[in-house]
Amino acid sequence: MSTANPSVEKVAQVILPAELLAHWQGHRTLTRKVIEAFPEKDFFEYSIGGMRPFSKMVDELLSIAGPGMKEIVSGKAAAFTEAVAHGNSKAKVLALWDEATEEINANWAKIGVDKFHDSIKLFGQYEGTIQSSILYFVDNEIHHRGQGYVYLRTLGIEPPMFWDRN
Amino acid sequence: MSTANPSVEKVAQVILPAELLAHWQGHRTLTRKVIEAFPEKDFFEYSIGGMRPFSKMVDELLSIAGPGMKEIVSGKAAAFTEAVAHGNSKAKVLALWDEATEEINANWAKIGVDKFHDSIKLFGQYEGTIQSSILYFVDNEIHHRGQGYVYLRTLGIEPPMFWDRN
Repeated sequence: MSTANPSVEKVAQVILPAELLAHWQGHRTLTRKVIEAFPEKDFFEYSIGGMRPFSKMVDELLSIAGPGMKEIVSGKAAAFTEAVAHGNSKAKVLALWDEATEEINANWAKIGVDKFHDSIKLFGQYEGTIQSSILYFVDNEIHHRGQGYVYLRTLGIEPPMFWDRN
Repeated sequence: MSTANPSVEKVAQVILPAELLAHWQGHRTLTRKVIEAFPEKDFFEYSIGGMRPFSKMVDELLSIAGPGMKEIVSGKAAAFTEAVAHGNSKAKVLALWDEATEEINANWAKIGVDKFHDSIKLFGQYEGTIQSSILYFVDNEIHHRGQGYVYLRTLGIEPPMFWDRN
């Protein structure tokens, strides 16, 4: 790795911390659009194949993203809970989603690039590194959002385009 | 970034090239299990919500992964085609999957860490960097595999665990 030219050194990495944050938040923006695309009742009640309603998957995502980042930065393990106080209001879910967006951004700024390989036992049970944990958060969100796309399709609703992250 | 200690410098990155490869191949291993979980007929024919059968999504993944990596390494743009010659045989699809695994590994070794931010117009039409293209490959696979999970659930089949990547 060249050290003569800092601008070259800066990009002699697979992905920079700010890029990974933008990648994640881009996915979160798309997931927000998917939440918006659901009719209120279907968001909380509709399901197929014996699976959870999409709202329950979103509860899981909300329980991971903000609290996970908080634990990564503080080092303080918290028990994992999927109970999210939204009183079955989609508007409240979206407000909580936006709060998490800000919380993630604020905590992200506290992770130095040298910290991403630090070990962590998230929520007291999931062992990995900060990097593998964050990738898991993103992957898990894409996975469940993909399921939400099928829910929307079977409801006859066109989902947002997969590449629409702004 | 410290240059005094190479082993420290080595991990002063969000993710190393070898780690991103392992991450992707881990996901590909899981997708392979999902393909295996489908009954032969359902893999090629079953669909819900007016969507494609899972085999067509897998055709898309096969058309992206191996050919995309080849283009990234060679710099030679190729037209994108989703036509995959498997004659509606799941065994043949799995064989093509395994060939792509080897092709990806072989080409990955040719991408230096300093190349991941190089610009590319993949398949002559998708602009981004090598890094954003590869993340798109992975994300797109997770997205469609998540849809395959719903297909399996509605068929009454238990999908593999999401974290089972070995």
